[in-house]
Amino acid sequence: MPATTITAFERSPDRGRGLARDMRVRWALEEVGQPYGTRLVSFAQMKAPAHRALHPFGQIPTYEEGSLALFETGAIVLHIAESHAGLLPADAHARSRAIMWMFAALNTVEPPIVEWGAAKILEQDKPWYAQRQPLLDERVRTRLAELAQRLGEADWLDGDTFSAGDLLMVTVLRRLGDASPLLGEQPSLLAYIARGEARPAYQRAFADQLAVFTASQAPN
Amino acid sequence: MPATTITAFERSPDRGRGLARDMRVRWALEEVGQPYGTRLVSFAQMKAPAHRALHPFGQIPTYEEGSLALFETGAIVLHIAESHAGLLPADAHARSRAIMWMFAALNTVEPPIVEWGAAKILEQDKPWYAQRQPLLDERVRTRLAELAQRLGEADWLDGDTFSAGDLLMVTVLRRLGDASPLLGEQPSLLAYIARGEARPAYQRAFADQLAVFTASQAPN
Repeated sequence: MPATTITAFERSPDRGRGLARDMRVRWALEEVGQPYGTRLVSFAQMKAPAHRALHPFGQIPTYEEGSLALFETGAIVLHIAESHAGLLPADAHARSRAIMWMFAALNTVEPPIVEWGAAKILEQDKPWYAQRQPLLDERVRTRLAELAQRLGEADWLDGDTFSAGDLLMVTVLRRLGDASPLLGEQPSLLAYIARGEARPAYQRAFADQLAVFTASQAPN
Repeated sequence: MPATTITAFERSPDRGRGLARDMRVRWALEEVGQPYGTRLVSFAQMKAPAHRALHPFGQIPTYEEGSLALFETGAIVLHIAESHAGLLPADAHARSRAIMWMFAALNTVEPPIVEWGAAKILEQDKPWYAQRQPLLDERVRTRLAELAQRLGEADWLDGDTFSAGDLLMVTVLRRLGDASPLLGEQPSLLAYIARGEARPAYQRAFADQLAVFTASQAPN
């Protein structure tokens, strides 16, 4: 049994497309070569007191390593990045900038993407949905254009070296979906996502989360 | 001239209530006792290429210290906390948990509060505003209840010791406003905010950002 245990959905609502947030932690652990175990939780378990003791907001993933228990994906990825080589540069300024991109992914780029996705799920039957959608598109479009402008022709956000900031940014952008017209307007971001998805660590993490979903669909 | 320079609004839309994000950086610098200079930017300057070179998303604050340039408030506060004593505990696990609360403030608690506030400003004239507002209230209400449940009777999120996680969480909760009915439902969170606001470092930072706004209103 590995010393590290994460939680993930017993049946992921994304149907194994790697959009649930355990994917971020799996990918980080694969990048640094650390084994881990996975404890699957149902939606009911996720909201029950035992899980809330680990995660006050009743979500996945959580991270347990010895007597350390963490929730919040950004914090878990940063903890992994600080504990092992491979996700943060050694140079102090470059390290600060990598952490800057972690926060930018989660606090500046992800929120309008979450709103855009949440409206599709929660408000599609509301009378205002069609009128409101262009507002949500525009907020995402602005952020993607600004991000593409900064990325320029670089491979990764801070230049040549992949970091935990790229890991989070790629997973945030993937939430828009494979065939997103908004992403389609920014070919350099599509190429950036593809570079992330091509990493062997990403592919191992993706296969592992897909295997959980596939098993959940198997007949008893 | 101090070695550290931040940017802030020339005329803050919050009218000096300490809700703009430079307040977070000012408070952190006051907690660790570091002097800093402030460069004020207009809305037009904020979106112009010179500022975008520092902040690709065209916002404030930015942070310059020698040859290091950062944007994204969470990353700036973490950089300050890592460079000086006073905002992160020495114990490794407690330090990881303080960083966990920084991410929780910005990625889990702030987004529904931003949406709630943005709808009030941007969608108040839309036909769907009144019908949609209860959905936004409910999302904020859920997060506040979960946060209050975890805080319990403790002074700070991880117990007895104030950290950068509390600094960000207090500033996130303050965005709901002084007389928020949603905050009124959680007296323990009101008391938590008041504990933050009572800190001398908070008060110095608040006075400094208010002075900028007051000066911007003075007749030429």
